[in-house]
This record gives sequence, C-alpha cells and structure tokens, in this order.
Amino acid sequence: MTPTRPVYVVGGSHSTFLGRGHPDFVWRKHPDFGTRDNPGVEEHLATALQETWALTGVAPQAIDKVYVANFLGELFLRQGHLGALLPRVERGLSGKPIARVEAACASGSVAIAGCVDALQAGCDVALAVGVEIETVGEAMDGVDHMAAAAHVASERGHDRFLFPWLFARRAKAYKEAFGATSEDLGRVAVKAYANASRNPKAQMRTVSMTLEEARATSERNREFLDDEVLRPHIRLSDCTTFSDGASAVVLATQEGLYRLGIHKELCTQIRAIGHTVQPMGAVLDPRRMSNMAHAASIAYGDASITAADVDVAEVHDCFTIAELQITEALGLAELGQGAHLLRDGATALDGSVPVNTGGGLLGFGHPVGATGVKQTVEIWRQMKGHAGDYQLDRTLTHGVTANVGGDDRTAIVMVHRNVT
Amino acid sequence: MTPTRPVYVVGGSHSTFLGRGHPDFVWRKHPDFGTRDNPGVEEHLATALQETWALTGVAPQAIDKVYVANFLGELFLRQGHLGALLPRVERGLSGKPIARVEAACASGSVAIAGCVDALQAGCDVALAVGVEIETVGEAMDGVDHMAAAAHVASERGHDRFLFPWLFARRAKAYKEAFGATSEDLGRVAVKAYANASRNPKAQMRTVSMTLEEARATSERNREFLDDEVLRPHIRLSDCTTFSDGASAVVLATQEGLYRLGIHKELCTQIRAIGHTVQPMGAVLDPRRMSNMAHAASIAYGDASITAADVDVAEVHDCFTIAELQITEALGLAELGQGAHLLRDGATALDGSVPVNTGGGLLGFGHPVGATGVKQTVEIWRQMKGHAGDYQLDRTLTHGVTANVGGDDRTAIVMVHRNVT
Repeated sequence: MTPTRPVYVVGGSHSTFLGRGHPDFVWRKHPDFGTRDNPGVEEHLATALQETWALTGVAPQAIDKVYVANFLGELFLRQGHLGALLPRVERGLSGKPIARVEAACASGSVAIAGCVDALQAGCDVALAVGVEIETVGEAMDGVDHMAAAAHVASERGHDRFLFPWLFARRAKAYKEAFGATSEDLGRVAVKAYANASRNPKAQMRTVSMTLEEARATSERNREFLDDEVLRPHIRLSDCTTFSDGASAVVLATQEGLYRLGIHKELCTQIRAIGHTVQPMGAVLDPRRMSNMAHAASIAYGDASITAADVDVAEVHDCFTIAELQITEALGLAELGQGAHLLRDGATALDGSVPVNTGGGLLGFGHPVGATGVKQTVEIWRQMKGHAGDYQLDRTLTHGVTANVGGDDRTAIVMVHRNVT
Repeated sequence: MTPTRPVYVVGGSHSTFLGRGHPDFVWRKHPDFGTRDNPGVEEHLATALQETWALTGVAPQAIDKVYVANFLGELFLRQGHLGALLPRVERGLSGKPIARVEAACASGSVAIAGCVDALQAGCDVALAVGVEIETVGEAMDGVDHMAAAAHVASERGHDRFLFPWLFARRAKAYKEAFGATSEDLGRVAVKAYANASRNPKAQMRTVSMTLEEARATSERNREFLDDEVLRPHIRLSDCTTFSDGASAVVLATQEGLYRLGIHKELCTQIRAIGHTVQPMGAVLDPRRMSNMAHAASIAYGDASITAADVDVAEVHDCFTIAELQITEALGLAELGQGAHLLRDGATALDGSVPVNTGGGLLGFGHPVGATGVKQTVEIWRQMKGHAGDYQLDRTLTHGVTANVGGDDRTAIVMVHRNVT
C-alpha cells in the first residue's frame, strides 16, 4: 500500500543486542555469572524507548498509537499481553491505544505497517516497538519455541532443529540449481560479522569470522542437523543465534511533524509497503523466495521504483542462504546470481548497494520481535548520518527493508525514501 | 477514534463454542472418548470462515487485509504465526496481508480496530478473525497459561488461580463498597445461562443454572482459591471455563460495499472505538473498572452519543463481577448500581438495555481470541435480525461492545449503529 498521508520516520534506537558472543552477556562461563543478570524484557524496552525519546526529542505523551512486536513472550517468559507491559515500562504511554502484533520473525514490520495504517486513520504520531528475550532457559527449548513459526502439526517432525532444516533445504536446492557453494554462503557470514565489528550495539561486535572458518565444518563450526542428507548444508556460522534486544521507532504524518516541531529533513519517508502471506507448510520451490518476490513487486510498484533505484537494503539474513535468496527476490540480483553479487562486493559497505550495514541478523543479532523495527531504524540511521563507524559516505535516496516470518510465509518489504 | 471513511459490518459468524458443559465436547467421561476428537484450531477457523462467506456472500478473494486475533496459541498448541495458518485453512486468502494481534482477552477487538485503520488507509474490504483452543492439556496448565495476561513477575504468586483471584478481589471490594451480595453476582450467571439456552452455538446451551445454585457454595459450585480471604468471593459459577471456538467478521467501506454488491441496509456501522491501556499490575481501585470507563468515554464522545442512547450491549463477563462493573463503566448504571440494573431486569432480553443476549462469555463461552470478534458479530446479528431464538423484538439503533484484556488493563469499547 502507498500511504495517502505521507508517513515520516522520525527516528528510533535499539538496546544493545545481547546473547552468546557478546562480552557483556552473562552465561555459565562468564566471569560475572551468579553475580549479575542479563537485562530482562522491561530493561531492553526501557533502553530502546529512552534512547528514542532522547534522540528524537519526542515525548511519550505525544504518541497517538502504539504497536508492540513480539513473537515468543509466552514461551520464553510466560508473559503475554505486552501491550499492557509497555506503559509499565514507560508511564507516559498510559491510557494510549497499544496492542501487540505477531508474525513470527516479521512481527516488527507488522508493527510498523499497523502504525502506517493508524497514521492514515487520523493519528499523527505513532510508535512501533519490537522486543524479544530468547536467552533464558535451555537452548533446545529455545529451538523448539522457534518452531512455532512453522506449521507444527505437519512440519515439526522434520528435524530437532526445524528452522535450520528448512533453510538447509533451501541451501541444498540453491546450490544444486545454481552451482553455488558453501563458500558463497560463508561469505554472507563473513560480511555480517565484519559489519557488526563496527557496530557498538551488535551482538557479534567482538567475534571474528574468516572465510576459512565460515566455509567449512570444524570443531568450532559444527554441522548439527539430525537429517543426514541436509546436514552438510548448514553449519553454526550459517545461523543466527539466540538474542535479547528491543528496538523502537517513531513515525509521524506531516501534521505530526508540525506538532512535534520536527523538520522533515531529519526524517526518512515510508513510501510503500508490500505485505504478503502464503500458507504454512507449502513451500513449493526452495530455490527461491517467491513470496518475498511478490511482496517486493507490490512495494516497488506502489513506490514507483525499480530494483535499480535501491541504494541500501536491510534484508532478513536469519540464515546465510536467506540473504542470497532475498537479494534475488528484491531484484538486486537475477535468480541464482545473489552469490555473485556478494562475491563481487556489491553488497559490501563500499559496494553499489550495501546490504545489512550494521551486521544484519547474523552479526547484529536477531531478537525476533525487534528485527523488523530495527531494519527500518537502520535505514533511517544510514540515510540521516547516524550510523557511526559503519556510516556509508554517499547519498542514499532509496532504501529497502525485507523482513520474513517463517520459511518465506510472511514477507514484508518497505521502500524508504530519504527526505532532503 | 472516529472513522473518516464509514466502516460497515457486513456480517460474520462463529463456530460452535465447545468445552466442558457442551454435549458434543469430548472429554474423559464422554461416550465418544477415544473414538472422536474435538475440532482443532484449523477446523474452528474453517467453520467460522465458511459460514461467514455463506452468510454474507463475500468471497475470500475480495478481502484486502486480515487480522487474526489469538492469545495463547503458543502455550496451548505450541503454534504461533497464525497469520500464515489462516491461508492454509482458506486458500483464497493466500497472498494477502495477514497478521496476528494479541491483547489477551481483548485480542478480538484489536483485530477489528486494526481492520478499521486499514479501511481508512485505502483498503475497502477487511476481515477480522479470532480463534482460541483452550481445552487441550491439563486444566491447571491452562490456568497457568491464562496468567500470561497479567504481570507474571509481580502478580503470578498471588494464587494458583490468578485471574479468579484478581476478580475475587474486585468482587470483595465491590460488595464491601456497595452492599452487593453473592446473590447479585449469581444473577449474572443465571442470566448468562438462560440466554445461552436459546443459542445453538453456546457452550452452555444445555446447562441449567438456578439462582439457588449460583448464589451459594455447594458440591457442584465450589470455592477453589488458595487465598482464604478472597476464597468466599468467587465460585465456579462466577467463572468462564475453557472454550474452543472461532469467530469471523467482514468489514467494508462504502466503496467496498459497492464492489461487493451489498446494500448497506444489511450492515451495521462502527461509529467509534475507544481503546485505552493501563500498566500491568497497577489496579488502584478494584471497586470499579476505571480504564474501561475511560475507553467508553472516548467511544461515546467520538460517536456523539451518551449511555442513554445504548439499546443493546455485549460486555466482557469473564467473571460475574466483570459484567456488573462494566455496565457501570459504560454508564448503563451509576457506580455501585449495576447489581440493581440486573435485578430490575433492565439487562434481560426483555429489558430496556439487554446485555449479552447470546449468553455472554459465561454462557456462550470464552475462547479468548474469538471473544472480541464475537461481540461485534453479536451486535450485528441482533440489529439485523439474525439472532434466532434470542432475537430482540424491538428496534435497535445503538449497540456497544466492551472487551477487556487482563484485569482492566486493555479496554476497547466500540459504538455500533444500525443502518436502516
């Protein structure tokens, strides 16, 4: 859809995404184990919100409508009803219309899409917040929780590690169809970790990943699927791991900006949203992300742009294969050519269309409910010069975010335009 | 908010709400136990959708946007991402923008509110669906799942039965403040079961409930809280029980009706929505529902009506005390006078402002995600003459739905107007 009333991204921020790999993350072998806890859901939310207010100058009282994106609060925390948790964290939001949305790993973009609708419906300032806590409990329980994004009744039995299995199926089909290699996939992880090393909020900011490590199985980079056929097609370095984090973004209409006293030159604009959903359990062609391609075609059409207009992209690299398939679904490369785009350096920070400049899901971290919100904030940060050590040094006119729920079952593509 | 583009309720339907008490519900002592299963989430959704298409003549292909309301799919079914489950049930919805919303027991009204926003944003036909499956697993696990609607970290310890405890606190405070009795509360249940006996889709349609049974503790009507102080203030008959069910409703703009070929005289109109959220764990005055009163004041103001204009209401009687407090929050009775309104027969089927004509949550059943959707469908059914044996026989101009999430933490009030 194309907003009739222009929608501006006023700005936003994230908490530091924490999990295994981050030096501050407390786990069994951490020196602080037993003396300090990791931040909880309320602390992550509070950090993202406080930084958003500070950065934008917007007060919570100015917000007309709020959506909170979260996937697995019930399973990881036994906590639902996060719409009513939010004003507990930020009392200035008390009395507002707030609700939680969920579309598995695409929840964050659903929150933004809901805010965009609200801004068409008469609201002038809206807030999208995403949050996830995933590092509590046993790791295998976490793996099981994530399976709730697929069709449990018919798909859960594929493998103990269901989502790695689903994306290993993609990796195998892609390699066989297009001659790609494990090295091509490894290169996605290497770029992600390299970008994350410049990003102080990234989970993997201090973790190094060389192509030699990423492309082959080793003690450190294990294969782990039960399925012997798919096992060689995915390794630890191909996967995101559990993350905790929150992200928040303020959106406003022209009237909203006026009320807030904010110049639109400080903003980006959401030009169009493509949001398409396909039935669970029915992926017909694992070589490509056809649902994502459909969402992209809607977004590009509604924004009157083509893939050639895209200057920067945030894409959903939950697994390495996903980044390659999404760059193709977005038309940044032809089908089967995503690996070449990457190898040629086009998606690097100094390339023609940088992808996942802050580290993406693999490097920045993937607290599921936060991810879609984070993507939109990252495009805003790049376009408005807030990206610090990973700031791109050229003019950016159009950016794209591509957020996936499940195995290409929910796809949401947004076209962002710089306002100058 | 008041829709700028008028929003029409085209119509909708429900699956039969099933659970303990319903003759078709299979449980351990049912004659069909072991030979037949209860319908699952996909079957309930399919029934609600198929009946909605049949009743309205709308085809799924005509829908522009969909919200699915669900609270506890992850905990009861280990299934999330219900937005992508829906096109599995109804292939005609494939490729649409669909997402799940959640605000505990107010989820259904959030879905409708999201659709209303979408209809302001350029969509012309929208679908809200609500669903919940609650009868699987152990009953005490189900009780624990429901606690996810409250602030788990600070409130879970109050009682094994957290929500009954929270509403017993309300019952005790209300009785002490206003001189109400257990008989006043029992009368809510008696009305609910009596209305349900006329409703073929109601869970309790064959269960009788006399005032003698409802007002006092007995072997059949036990007290069950651990908390000795609050224990006398709630009995089984004061509570909804676990239900499975789904409800669906089609909403459209004037342009949508034209496209569908539907005359607006077949519709009701959503005139205004009041949606307010207060922080979890911070109920200051259990004698009243102040957040619900706030939501009602917004909805009435935006619709330019007063409580005196309300002809029929669907209110969130998750516990008997809730119906009394909500009739007061809606201004149908003065504070503390809800019990008198009921005793005087004003809220009965032949009263001046019938409340919960199909049995409400206590009698019809309370599959949590479905409830808010069901309320709006029920107002439409009454206004358009679809209510069968519980059809009111007089002109209805304004109706109100009042949906609650948690302990008055999310409140959503909608004003519906008949279109003639």
